[in-house]
Amino acid sequence: MKGLVTVIFEPEGRRVRTALGTTIFQAASEAGVGIRSECGGEGKCGKCRVVVPLKSALNEVTTTEMKHLSSSEIDSGYRLACCALIKEDAVIMIPTESRTEMRKIQIVGLERPVALNPLVKKFHITLPKPTLSDARPDLERLLECLKQKHYFYELEIDYELLRELPDLLRDANWGITVTVWNNRKIIAIEKGNTLDKLFGLAIDIGTSKIVVYVVDLTTGRTMGIGSIENPQVIHGEDIISRITYAMTGNEKLETLQKLIVKGINDALQNACIEATVNPRSIYEATVVGNTAMHHFFLAIQPKHIAFSPFTPAIKRSIDIEARQLNIKMHPGGIVHVLPIIAGFVGADAVADILSTGIHESEKVSLLIDIGTNTEVFVGNAEDILSCSCASGPAFEGAHIKHGMKAVTGAIEKLRVNPDSYEVEYETIGGTKPVGLCGSAMIDVTAELFKCRIINRRGRFNLKIKTPRLKVVNSDIAFVVARKNESGTGKEITVTQKDINEIQLAKAAIFTGCSILMKRKKVNEKDINRVFMAGAFGSYINPESAKFIGLTPDVPTKKIKFVGNTAITGAELALISKEARKTAKTISEKVRYLELSVDPDFTLEFSNAMFLPHKDLDRFPSVKTYFNRM
Amino acid sequence: MKGLVTVIFEPEGRRVRTALGTTIFQAASEAGVGIRSECGGEGKCGKCRVVVPLKSALNEVTTTEMKHLSSSEIDSGYRLACCALIKEDAVIMIPTESRTEMRKIQIVGLERPVALNPLVKKFHITLPKPTLSDARPDLERLLECLKQKHYFYELEIDYELLRELPDLLRDANWGITVTVWNNRKIIAIEKGNTLDKLFGLAIDIGTSKIVVYVVDLTTGRTMGIGSIENPQVIHGEDIISRITYAMTGNEKLETLQKLIVKGINDALQNACIEATVNPRSIYEATVVGNTAMHHFFLAIQPKHIAFSPFTPAIKRSIDIEARQLNIKMHPGGIVHVLPIIAGFVGADAVADILSTGIHESEKVSLLIDIGTNTEVFVGNAEDILSCSCASGPAFEGAHIKHGMKAVTGAIEKLRVNPDSYEVEYETIGGTKPVGLCGSAMIDVTAELFKCRIINRRGRFNLKIKTPRLKVVNSDIAFVVARKNESGTGKEITVTQKDINEIQLAKAAIFTGCSILMKRKKVNEKDINRVFMAGAFGSYINPESAKFIGLTPDVPTKKIKFVGNTAITGAELALISKEARKTAKTISEKVRYLELSVDPDFTLEFSNAMFLPHKDLDRFPSVKTYFNRM
Repeated sequence: MKGLVTVIFEPEGRRVRTALGTTIFQAASEAGVGIRSECGGEGKCGKCRVVVPLKSALNEVTTTEMKHLSSSEIDSGYRLACCALIKEDAVIMIPTESRTEMRKIQIVGLERPVALNPLVKKFHITLPKPTLSDARPDLERLLECLKQKHYFYELEIDYELLRELPDLLRDANWGITVTVWNNRKIIAIEKGNTLDKLFGLAIDIGTSKIVVYVVDLTTGRTMGIGSIENPQVIHGEDIISRITYAMTGNEKLETLQKLIVKGINDALQNACIEATVNPRSIYEATVVGNTAMHHFFLAIQPKHIAFSPFTPAIKRSIDIEARQLNIKMHPGGIVHVLPIIAGFVGADAVADILSTGIHESEKVSLLIDIGTNTEVFVGNAEDILSCSCASGPAFEGAHIKHGMKAVTGAIEKLRVNPDSYEVEYETIGGTKPVGLCGSAMIDVTAELFKCRIINRRGRFNLKIKTPRLKVVNSDIAFVVARKNESGTGKEITVTQKDINEIQLAKAAIFTGCSILMKRKKVNEKDINRVFMAGAFGSYINPESAKFIGLTPDVPTKKIKFVGNTAITGAELALISKEARKTAKTISEKVRYLELSVDPDFTLEFSNAMFLPHKDLDRFPSVKTYFNRM
Repeated sequence: MKGLVTVIFEPEGRRVRTALGTTIFQAASEAGVGIRSECGGEGKCGKCRVVVPLKSALNEVTTTEMKHLSSSEIDSGYRLACCALIKEDAVIMIPTESRTEMRKIQIVGLERPVALNPLVKKFHITLPKPTLSDARPDLERLLECLKQKHYFYELEIDYELLRELPDLLRDANWGITVTVWNNRKIIAIEKGNTLDKLFGLAIDIGTSKIVVYVVDLTTGRTMGIGSIENPQVIHGEDIISRITYAMTGNEKLETLQKLIVKGINDALQNACIEATVNPRSIYEATVVGNTAMHHFFLAIQPKHIAFSPFTPAIKRSIDIEARQLNIKMHPGGIVHVLPIIAGFVGADAVADILSTGIHESEKVSLLIDIGTNTEVFVGNAEDILSCSCASGPAFEGAHIKHGMKAVTGAIEKLRVNPDSYEVEYETIGGTKPVGLCGSAMIDVTAELFKCRIINRRGRFNLKIKTPRLKVVNSDIAFVVARKNESGTGKEITVTQKDINEIQLAKAAIFTGCSILMKRKKVNEKDINRVFMAGAFGSYINPESAKFIGLTPDVPTKKIKFVGNTAITGAELALISKEARKTAKTISEKVRYLELSVDPDFTLEFSNAMFLPHKDLDRFPSVKTYFNRM
C-alpha cells in the first residue's frame, strides 16, 4: 500500500505497518511497544532515546534532539522517538534505559498485558549544598533540581513533608530519594537511595471480605496478599442493615468507617509481613468496592443510596492523603478511590470491566460479578449496560444449612450418580468435608435436577427412593456426605430451603442478565463471552451454572470463571496510569438500568425461579439433556 | 499617530489610546477600568458584557458571542469585551453588571486604588432534585450546575465537605450557596442564600505584636481589627531566643506554633466581635510576617535561618486548609501564607513593597520597615535591593529606661526649647505621660542634639547648666517630665544608656540604607521618596529622623511615615488576586544583600554611630542648621 512503511522494533522483533511520516513514538504505541517518556512525547524530557542505524530512514535530527543528545550519540544513530519521523522501512532498537517494563497480569482464564506505569515514581538526587552565595531556600533548591534533572515544572509538596524538609535534607547530607505522585506532588523524601523500595496497595472492600495486594511498583509483581472478614459484619451481614445502622447517627457512620479501616490495616499488615515490605514504603493505594462500601470507607452518609432515587454522593474518583483516612501506609501517600457507576454499581464494577476488558472488544460480552449484590453487564466497546441484582449471600454460604465460605474443608465440586444417587465430591485442601461452598451449591442443584430428585420448580421428589433423601424436622434433605465421611461427625445435607435460596439467588441474577439483554437487543447467540467473577470462591462449573439457569444457555467454552476481578482491576489501576484513565471512561460511559423499576422485572423474575427457566426454549441444551434421557 | 485609536469608557469617561485591533478587554485593562471576567478573557464565561452603540467601530459579532448574547442584545449593541476588536475610535459603555468594584485602600500618606477581586467567591444556586430518571450523584449534580451557570470546568471539592454533602443538600432542599476558592476548589456550602456573608482575614505576625483585619470581601471594607501581643514572648522577646528555644526539640517548636495560633485566634475573635461577623464566614486568610514568624507559624524548624548561610525552608507562597493549622475561621477555608524574599527578609517585606508600590515607580524609593529587625529596600520598577538590619527593639520601647510601646500615656512627640531647655510634649490619649515611645525617643535624641546637650558622639555635655540634666546612679539623665507632671509620680528621664541604644539602632538602619544605596549606585539626590513603615507606632517626625541620621538627608517632604504596611499588604493580597500575583513577582525579583558579610559593613556602621554621621557632608541640612546657629 502506498504511504505505509514497515517498522521493526528490536530486540523483541515486534513489527507494525504505519503511515509514512509517523513518529517512532507513535509507531511504538501502535505496535504495543513501551518506550519511556515523562513528557508524553512532547520533546521535553529526552527519555525516549532510541537507536536507528539507518539514518536515511528518518527525518533530519531536530534542534530539540540536539539539546538532549550529544553529538557522538547522534553519530551513533541515537534519536528521540518523539521527534524522529519515519520516512521508509526501518529497524529501531530500543535500549534498556528507554524501555517501560511490560508485565502480564494473570487473571484466571485471562491474560492481559499491561505497561508498568504507576503514578508514584522515585528519583534519587543530590542537591548542591547551600552557601552564602547560593542561599536558595530548601524547597526551591529541591524543585529547581527536579526541574533540571527530571523536567518537573509544577510540583507541589505535601505540607507535613515541608515541615520536615530542612532537617531531613541536612540529615541526608543533601542526597535523597524523592517520591512524586502523578507528576504533581512530592509526597515523600527519604535519606539516600531508596529507589528499590517502591510499593503500592490494591484494596477490594467487599461486603463480606476485604482483600489487599501489596505490589512492587518497580516490577509490577504482587508481593503479598492479605484477606480478612469485613469487620463491619458485627453491624449486619448485608448492606442494608449496615446502612440502617449508619442512618441512626454520624458517630455510627464513623464507627463503621473505622471498622473498614481497621480491616484494611490488619490485612495490609499481614500482606506486608508476607512480602517483607515496610508499610511506609507503600506510597499509593487504589480502592474498589460497591457503592455502599465506597461511601462507608469515605465516611460519607450512605442512606441516600438505600432509598429511591438511590443517589450516591460522588461518582468520580477521589484522591485522599493516607493520613486523613488513617491507612497505615506512608502517611503522605495517596489513597485513590476508583470512580463508581451508580448507586448499586460501584467501583468494584468499574474494576470488573477494567480487568476483563469487555469494553475493548467489538463482540458482546456478558459479565456477572456474583456477590451479595450481583452486578451484571452486557455490552462491548461501543456501549455497556449494567444493573445490580439483589442476589443475597447464598453463594457465599449464608442462609444455607451447611453452607460455608470457600475455605479449607468446603466441598467445592460435586457430582451425583444418576443411577445410584451416590455423591462424588472434592474439598478445598483435600480434607474431610465440613460444608458446601457456593460452587458446590450450584453443582448440587444442577445434579439433583439432572437426577430428577428436584423438579423444575425446585421441589424434592419424595417418590425417588434412596436413603440419601429424607425428611428431617419437617424439612426434606438430601445427604451429601454421611456422618462417617464428614469432618464434623455429622451429616452434611442440602435442604428444600437451601434449594429455594439458590433458586432465589440465581433467579435474581438471571433476571438481570435477561432484562439487560432485552434492553441491549441481543440474544444468547450474540453473546461472545460470559465472564463469571466473584470474590467468594475459586471455581464455578459453567455446565452447572448454565443447567440451573444462573447464566444464559451459551456454549460452555464461552463461559469463563475469572475470580476476583475487583481486586485485579484495582491492581491494574495501581500499576498503570492508562488503566486509571480507562476506569474514568468506563465510569462515565457505562449506563445503568434500575431493575426494580423495570416493567418486566416481576414477570422475568418469576419465570427465572424455574430450573433452568419457565421457558425451556431459552435453554436448549437442558431441553436436549432431558429429551435424550 | 497611525495604527492608534482613542477609546472612551463610560460612565467614567476614562480615555485610552491603544493599538488598532486591540480587544475592548485589553483596552479596559490599559485604561485601568475594571471589567468582570471569570475566565480571564477567554470567551468562556460571558461576563464581560459591554455596550457599543456604534457597531462599525468593532469587528463582526463572533460565534462565541452569539453563544452568550441573545439576538436582541446583539441588536442593542451588546458585545463581549474579550471578543470585540476595536477598529476605530469608540465609546464603550460598561453596564453595572459588568463592573468590578474598585475601592481605595487607605494607608497613612498613601492612597492606592485596587480592584476588588478576592480569591473566594460565592454563588447561590438551586439544584434540580434527583429523580429516578436523573439519579446523578450529588457532587456531579452540583458540579454540572456550577459548570452550566458559572463556567467552572474543573472544580475540586474539600474532602471533609464532600462527606457532609448528601445531608447538606437535602437539608437545604437543594437551594445552596457555594464558596469557591481560586476558581479551583469548593471550600464551603451553606443552606439558602448567604451571598452577603463573605469575609476574609489579613494577618500580620510581628515578633512583638499580632494584628488581624476582618475584611468584608463583598465591599473590600475593613470591618474589625484585632491586635494582641505575640504570646511567644514568654519564650523570649527577640527572634533568636525563640529560635534557640525551638532548636531544643520539635515539641518546643510545636509549643511556639500553638502560641502564634492562639494569638491569632484571640485577635480574630476580638475583631469578629467588633465586626459582628461569625468566624465561620471567614473563608480565606492571608498571612505575613518575618521569615522566623513565617516558619514558626508553619511549624517548620527555623534554626537553619539563624546560622550561615541563613537558608529558609520555602520561599514561595503556600495555601493550607484552616483546619490543618487550627485557625478558627471556616474549617475548610484557605490560609494563604505570602512568599518571602530571604532568610531575614520575610513575607512582611513583600507586603511592605506591595502596599507602598515602590516596585511600580520608575523613580527610586527607599523603604524602611522599622522593627526589632528592620528591613530596608532601595529600588524602583526595574530592580529592588533589600537587606535586614539588626536594629533591636529600642524603637519599640525595650531596653530604654522609660521606654514603652505606643499606647495611651506614651509621649509620642517632643520639643526641647534651645534656650530654656524646657520640654513640650504630646502624649497618646492626651493623658499624663508615663513613658516615651519610639517616635519620642527619636525626637528627644534630635532635640538634645540640636541643643548641644548631647554631642555628635551622643555623649551628654555636663557643662550645660540646667536642672533637667543630672547624674543619677552614675548614669547621666535628662529629665523629660518632672515628678509632678508624670502619670507615675516619678521623673521620666532619658539616660546616656538610652541615647546609646538609639544610636546603635539608628546606626544599624542607616548602615543598611547606605550600603544598599552604594550597591545600587544611587545617592541622596536620586531618592525620590523615603517610606518609613512599622507596626510599632503611629507617627515619626521626619525632621527628627533625618537629624539623628536614621534616614538619609533628603527633603523632608519626600519622607512619609506609612504605618503598618505589612498588614496593609496582607489586606491587599486578600482582596485582590492581581496583588497576590504581584507579591509573587516581588518575592522572585527583589534581590537580597547579606549585610553581615559585606566588606563595608564595619566601617559604615561605626561612621553611622555619630549624630547624624561621621561624614557631615552627607547631612547638609544638619550642617546648615549648626552653621546657622
